[in-house]
Amino acid sequence: MARNNAFYAQSGGVSAVINASACGVLQTARQHREQIGKVYAGRNGIIGALTEDLIDTSVESEGAIAALKHTPGAAFGSCRYKLASFDEQRAQYERLIEVFRAHEIGFFFYNGGGDSQDTAYKVSRISPELAYPIVCVGIPKTVDNDLPITDCSPGFGSTAKYVATSLREAAFDLASMSRTSTQVFVLEVMGRHAGWATAACALAAEREGDGPHVLLLPEVTFSEERFLAKVAEAVHRYDHCVIAVSEGVKGSDGEFLSASGSADAFGHAQLGGVAPLIANLISTKLGYKCHWGVPDYLQRSGRHIASETDLQHAYAVGRAAVEFAIAGKNAVMPAIRRLSDDPYRWDIIEAPLSEVANQEKLLPRDFISADGFGITEPARRYLAPLIVGEAYPPFRNGLPDYVKLRNIAAPKKLGAEFTI
Amino acid sequence: MARNNAFYAQSGGVSAVINASACGVLQTARQHREQIGKVYAGRNGIIGALTEDLIDTSVESEGAIAALKHTPGAAFGSCRYKLASFDEQRAQYERLIEVFRAHEIGFFFYNGGGDSQDTAYKVSRISPELAYPIVCVGIPKTVDNDLPITDCSPGFGSTAKYVATSLREAAFDLASMSRTSTQVFVLEVMGRHAGWATAACALAAEREGDGPHVLLLPEVTFSEERFLAKVAEAVHRYDHCVIAVSEGVKGSDGEFLSASGSADAFGHAQLGGVAPLIANLISTKLGYKCHWGVPDYLQRSGRHIASETDLQHAYAVGRAAVEFAIAGKNAVMPAIRRLSDDPYRWDIIEAPLSEVANQEKLLPRDFISADGFGITEPARRYLAPLIVGEAYPPFRNGLPDYVKLRNIAAPKKLGAEFTI
Repeated sequence: MARNNAFYAQSGGVSAVINASACGVLQTARQHREQIGKVYAGRNGIIGALTEDLIDTSVESEGAIAALKHTPGAAFGSCRYKLASFDEQRAQYERLIEVFRAHEIGFFFYNGGGDSQDTAYKVSRISPELAYPIVCVGIPKTVDNDLPITDCSPGFGSTAKYVATSLREAAFDLASMSRTSTQVFVLEVMGRHAGWATAACALAAEREGDGPHVLLLPEVTFSEERFLAKVAEAVHRYDHCVIAVSEGVKGSDGEFLSASGSADAFGHAQLGGVAPLIANLISTKLGYKCHWGVPDYLQRSGRHIASETDLQHAYAVGRAAVEFAIAGKNAVMPAIRRLSDDPYRWDIIEAPLSEVANQEKLLPRDFISADGFGITEPARRYLAPLIVGEAYPPFRNGLPDYVKLRNIAAPKKLGAEFTI
Repeated sequence: MARNNAFYAQSGGVSAVINASACGVLQTARQHREQIGKVYAGRNGIIGALTEDLIDTSVESEGAIAALKHTPGAAFGSCRYKLASFDEQRAQYERLIEVFRAHEIGFFFYNGGGDSQDTAYKVSRISPELAYPIVCVGIPKTVDNDLPITDCSPGFGSTAKYVATSLREAAFDLASMSRTSTQVFVLEVMGRHAGWATAACALAAEREGDGPHVLLLPEVTFSEERFLAKVAEAVHRYDHCVIAVSEGVKGSDGEFLSASGSADAFGHAQLGGVAPLIANLISTKLGYKCHWGVPDYLQRSGRHIASETDLQHAYAVGRAAVEFAIAGKNAVMPAIRRLSDDPYRWDIIEAPLSEVANQEKLLPRDFISADGFGITEPARRYLAPLIVGEAYPPFRNGLPDYVKLRNIAAPKKLGAEFTI
């Protein structure tokens, strides 16, 4: 019996290029029909496997699959759902294997960040125990860039390009107006624990005096006094100050600044938002007029300003995952290895899932400037190539022309429902 | 004596394409050297005239002037500064004329929104009284699209394209995740009194069920009960709900929901932060998990996603302003006239400054859907052509390559300082 079908799913927060990885998986699988039969996609990640809600990707046209390369979001739906340990939740794993067996699935591809690699790793470990051998390959994706081993994570380069471009544009705006209007602009950037995207904002500055003038990284404990002095100095020197603040910046008590809730006009505690808090601090303590921006989802789904380098990475890890699986490589993840900074060269290597799962790669100390408010030359050398190249989607009627797949469910083979 | 120099200045909040108007002015003036001598730009708008801080644009290279067409912000600095009436502030007007006389300025070009057209109109009215004839031409610019007579205002199309693109991308993100994560996304859009930019978000929806599902327009009084019912209905039908909210939405008391109590130089309430308020309301009352975004300056300086149509408008009004001035047309503003929706055709006509100044064009009632939460087909027909075409700036090292002019001050001719 064959068992040569594949399961592919997308997991965790989405990115501008996770569908490019899906495209790499599906196009490569279609090129290897002798080794890989149907590719079933899980609707909403691993939940699709647990509930036997499998999308039959074979009915999608070549054109629709190709269009995934320029479409943001997760084409098959994603999820935030972490499998418990085998001992705690044996029934879940048994159910997964039951679904895989029913649909003759021999390959398991899971596309996501640290938690998702953990899921892939867990599945790889229980499959022998449940006497159902399956080849498990993780596919890296996270705008946070915090996966270990891989030099960078697909998704990050596009977010980095988005925030650096946006910050440069906002800095031009602010500098135009600071004589009679706003003097400070604060941009809030994703990255709960790792400051990679906030660090990338520094690429926006080209010449002495260009913003951003201050970065607030989650790796550096926030000091109100030192921060305000830095802002005042920038306004004094340049008449304005551009700040990029990580959503994950913490005070000396180790708590997120954004958790220290202020109340809104309705008297409700304010929902998130460290940028308004920082802006308020500055206007209260220094008297400067401030504006703030929180792009939120826009920075991780901004496919219109995706990095070509990032897109190539995303596609390559999807393709490599299938090639690894066909070669029988189990419990691995394709990782990007940097061969040189300039000219930028890279290739793909294997990373063992055991070493990838549940690790978080923070900004190294030597990437952060001595005062903690900026980045160093090594950081700049690392970041610079990741945002290079524009990978514009096609436009129709003035808007990006993104694809929505048909996402037709494969007929269920199991009688029982499974409640998650 | 010649008096054939020109004064050009940028005023009010900037846009992605106000510098394209500057480019139109400067390139056209350079093509008419017999009629127009030097073009002096005011550093920071009218303040540059009052303080005799005039930028000599003649030293800028052809290449630098051409690059203005793809550079956001205000290349010469903008200001929020409104001239008082002649009776109240005679000294200011006398000073203006004194500076114009000293620099042999016979043409006054002022590039901005309603308040700025008011400034241009005032200058046109006092010049005969002070026995210093000067040709005054306003140049339209406002992302709010609230200038009268002109079919649309340069700057608006690019903001419209930015918000519609961003909302489409965020909607793809949200729809991917709503099964196990966030169900509602709220995007806050500029537009203090007029809902044009918020209305443009509706262009993001292509098919039944696509976001945005709810618009909150400043022209429609906010009703908490009706709004929450609308959101609940969208989540019920589509599993998620995308909302675009104008910063200027008001409650039944006529107050801005987001009113913060601070005011800008024009005495307008300074807004910002209605999105977190709306998100908080939904999560408190309906229990849905919400995300919110506030692009703030990003939406008016996002030159990387500018509309080609808007760019053409912006350049054309700059060019036409100079042509009007050469033809001796005084106290006018070039306005865009729509000849047809599809194919989109337009030309430039003259609007009298007396009819433009201090008017605000709001969304007409027949552009707003019956329930107040969306737009109608006529609105869609009006908006659609304005976002068409991509006008990408050049990129270098992965980032837009914007120009910074030399901005060298012309030697002062007046002894006295003038304090504003």
